Amino acid sequence: MKKIRAAVVGYGNIGHYTLQALEAATDFEIAGIVRRNGAENRPEELEKYDVVKDIRELKDVDVAILATPTRSVEQYAKEILALGINTVDSFDIHTQIPALRRSLDESARAGGAVSIISAGWDPGSDSVVRTLMEAIAPKGITYTNFGPGMSMGHTVAVKAVEGVKAALSMTIPTGTGIHRRMVYIEVKEGYEFDKVAAAIKADAYFVNDETHVVQVPCVDDLLDMGHGVNLTRKGVSGRTQNQLLEFNMRINNPALTGQVLVCVARASMRQQPGCYTMIEVPVIDLLPGDRDEWIGHLV
Amino acid sequence: MKKIRAAVVGYGNIGHYTLQALEAATDFEIAGIVRRNGAENRPEELEKYDVVKDIRELKDVDVAILATPTRSVEQYAKEILALGINTVDSFDIHTQIPALRRSLDESARAGGAVSIISAGWDPGSDSVVRTLMEAIAPKGITYTNFGPGMSMGHTVAVKAVEGVKAALSMTIPTGTGIHRRMVYIEVKEGYEFDKVAAAIKADAYFVNDETHVVQVPCVDDLLDMGHGVNLTRKGVSGRTQNQLLEFNMRINNPALTGQVLVCVARASMRQQPGCYTMIEVPVIDLLPGDRDEWIGHLV
Repeated sequence: MKKIRAAVVGYGNIGHYTLQALEAATDFEIAGIVRRNGAENRPEELEKYDVVKDIRELKDVDVAILATPTRSVEQYAKEILALGINTVDSFDIHTQIPALRRSLDESARAGGAVSIISAGWDPGSDSVVRTLMEAIAPKGITYTNFGPGMSMGHTVAVKAVEGVKAALSMTIPTGTGIHRRMVYIEVKEGYEFDKVAAAIKADAYFVNDETHVVQVPCVDDLLDMGHGVNLTRKGVSGRTQNQLLEFNMRINNPALTGQVLVCVARASMRQQPGCYTMIEVPVIDLLPGDRDEWIGHLV
Repeated sequence: MKKIRAAVVGYGNIGHYTLQALEAATDFEIAGIVRRNGAENRPEELEKYDVVKDIRELKDVDVAILATPTRSVEQYAKEILALGINTVDSFDIHTQIPALRRSLDESARAGGAVSIISAGWDPGSDSVVRTLMEAIAPKGITYTNFGPGMSMGHTVAVKAVEGVKAALSMTIPTGTGIHRRMVYIEVKEGYEFDKVAAAIKADAYFVNDETHVVQVPCVDDLLDMGHGVNLTRKGVSGRTQNQLLEFNMRINNPALTGQVLVCVARASMRQQPGCYTMIEVPVIDLLPGDRDEWIGHLV
């Protein structure tokens, strides 16, 4: 079997774990890594790979796994799809997903390529479970309860507040989709903690949530990439009430995202040109190897 | 929008709940019910419907929902697919699913129709979750823990044992995919309970499980259609160990099966001719209405 040649674009946390997932997947070959600095100062684990500044320097790439910041996804994807190379990403601004899908659908069709977007764990694998729950109990309410775990978006928002030297924003589920924000900060010299804390609580990211700000000597000592989710739906099948459905995960956050990206990179090879979210792709396409065997084993 | 015209074939428990799910689904029209006895002695809730002995007596059927015993599924499906009508079923003999799929794939393609098989909750919606779990944590073990709830197959097996007047076999999960069987029976006059109990425990359905047989005055007083499942996977994403995934349901068993059948009947209208299991169908196809809206809402 010809292996799928994948490039990793961006090499932060997600890129790092994506590479590990690719190395563990026997149906993939690593075409190379695309970094802003190219091979300059590359970490040790990249020594055996082609590390370049532009994906066009790599040979025969089938699919590019975008491990870039969410806000750069659209531009990178458009450029790469135009080369006829599939792209996958974990774009995570929920409200902008339909627009990104329309935009990349056009680019993908024009390039004769496939793009699978918003493929992490939420949006991503959670979306598949939410859709399934909605289908099998069509009336009712689904609650997505995140955490406990670090919120990347909220942490970045705290870091932008004046007087904050270092920050960590933890998402704590209190049920029914409501979350407490536990914010741990180091304060810059010359700033008062109380004023900084008030500014954080007034920020758009926090103003509607129960938020606690705590001063700590060293934020780095608190960092842990574990995360979790609890998805619940209580609903109605036909005329039958009280159907109770629940999905739970306790996971290493970037490791799961990296693995999902590798799964959808594989699935991208099996779709018609266009742009898809994970709920539009059959779950069997996420798996390597023989379909008949999986059907016998998993159905 | 043109409605999907569905026929329900077979009107036992599953057929009854399937009809309720169809009545609740605004994108469906009920073409009629197919019963061995036709309209003879039909229950009150069927009075407003065409009730016939042969599906050919119904007009413009798009999809037939087979609510027949599992062992009759293949024959009914072949006959109906040959008429160019889609079929869906909840065939539940796990080991025979790949063979049924191959057989009905041929019939479906020949008839220019679609068949979606083994679409209940297990096999069915659980299969989708198992596949997703396998994909996002490719190394590890998945355990499917059923119950507490009534096992149809085991109950039928007990009823076939000599001396059994009435029976109920409950499946009790004891973890790691191992189940206890709690069997409640009424004994026929002239039979000794101890001998009947021993015969049940020696039956192929029970000989490998921890089985307890209990004599009760009235099995009917114990019947409850609630059931449940706990699916767990502890696995590895890339090189990261201890990824913990879990799916739980507490549900009315035939109501959920009926609802899943209606979802896949809808999905059958969106597939190319051939036979599919649920893991081969995008979950979004299970839902009615506008796809863009669902993508905005669920992804």
